[in-house]
Amino acid sequence: MKKIEVCFTPDLLHLHDLTEFNVVIVDILRATSSMTTAFAHGVKSIIPVAKVEECMALKLMGCVAAAERGGKMVEGFDLGNSPFDYMDKNLKDKTIAMTTTNGTLAISKSKEAKEVIIGSFLNISAVINHLQESNENTLVVCAGWKGQPNMEDTIFAGAIIESLKKEFTVSQDSALLSNAMYNIGKRNIYSFISNSSHFKRLQGFGLDKDIEYCLTNDMYNVLPILNGDEIEVVPEKYGRSAAGI
Amino acid sequence: MKKIEVCFTPDLLHLHDLTEFNVVIVDILRATSSMTTAFAHGVKSIIPVAKVEECMALKLMGCVAAAERGGKMVEGFDLGNSPFDYMDKNLKDKTIAMTTTNGTLAISKSKEAKEVIIGSFLNISAVINHLQESNENTLVVCAGWKGQPNMEDTIFAGAIIESLKKEFTVSQDSALLSNAMYNIGKRNIYSFISNSSHFKRLQGFGLDKDIEYCLTNDMYNVLPILNGDEIEVVPEKYGRSAAGI
Repeated sequence: MKKIEVCFTPDLLHLHDLTEFNVVIVDILRATSSMTTAFAHGVKSIIPVAKVEECMALKLMGCVAAAERGGKMVEGFDLGNSPFDYMDKNLKDKTIAMTTTNGTLAISKSKEAKEVIIGSFLNISAVINHLQESNENTLVVCAGWKGQPNMEDTIFAGAIIESLKKEFTVSQDSALLSNAMYNIGKRNIYSFISNSSHFKRLQGFGLDKDIEYCLTNDMYNVLPILNGDEIEVVPEKYGRSAAGI
Repeated sequence: MKKIEVCFTPDLLHLHDLTEFNVVIVDILRATSSMTTAFAHGVKSIIPVAKVEECMALKLMGCVAAAERGGKMVEGFDLGNSPFDYMDKNLKDKTIAMTTTNGTLAISKSKEAKEVIIGSFLNISAVINHLQESNENTLVVCAGWKGQPNMEDTIFAGAIIESLKKEFTVSQDSALLSNAMYNIGKRNIYSFISNSSHFKRLQGFGLDKDIEYCLTNDMYNVLPILNGDEIEVVPEKYGRSAAGI
């Protein structure tokens, strides 16, 4: 049987042989939620980069460029990390270079995996369907916060497991812990994570609207997957036309 | 206010400035439970070492020596990692060199902390009382399993937080996650962790009795603390005479 495991932070990725897994990258607040939103609104591709300097270099080469650090947009860039930044028809068919505090680093560190899939509550069913149809093991990689585990990504990992536990072996403790967390928080995830560190940080910036949006299930039927150095949607099944917008 | 945080595995210790914390080392199954038991039965001191070779060198120099890897005693040593090995009157007033898969490594990596305290369910109240009386921040360091988080150590961290959350700030996500886990598992921890990886591993070795014993609250009023390279009990408050045996 296929197995599903969880990595609580990119700082624990060395414990996993990525070549054995499809990886789902999770940065609920907000990188993977923003990426999902961008593709649902017609963005052609996203180039995730770990460092601000790399992202600036791509901007200077003509890319639209998004950079966030510590929850805020970095000065000199076109976009930050709010999903609402990506609901812009001017971004249709564009390629965006993007760097965020945690999410894009998690992607950079996961490139050896069989597939690198962008997961968020906004496209959770598209992700689950794809993992069900694949014959590969799954590793959910939580982006966390500067190396530390966080609550919202852990709960999302648990939500994925809840839907897959009949078809996948769930024996790793991090997977069991995530799933147990999801099951106590699922009735009201917004309230459950309201004490968490990044929730409070974003709330402090007046970003309640971002948080609520990022916790919405199944807003878009898009499946962004890393292809070489760029993230793209898988067009045959989850094209932009299926996003219902 | 003092703060309490949790480190899910020694592989995340680089994220913490240990010099700001009293550290509680937790390896419920079974290193810190065995250490607690040893002191309650009159052992004078324990020298924790990370490697089997170091432990053998200390044995050759005349120490009683304990070594465990993968849940089993290493051949050629005097003792393994079962707490029942340490209920031996021949060990009274002896110094034991000890290496285990996870617990002694966690101790070795935590030496910079203000204090390194050995915690287990067996001495949980002694640990809690000590942390309440201290003016320092607390970091609970879970030994985990070969770098991965585990369920039983996470739940113990949550139990410590449950008792301290009125006096300590609990804002780090790992601490919040641990505490939530404890609160769903606390009614029957044995049953709650029965799907976890190391529970199954020990059960496979016929060690149910060890597991049940290690989940017993407050069997001993001993507080083992690292002093230089050796762990000793704090005699003025938690001497062997107080162990009630």
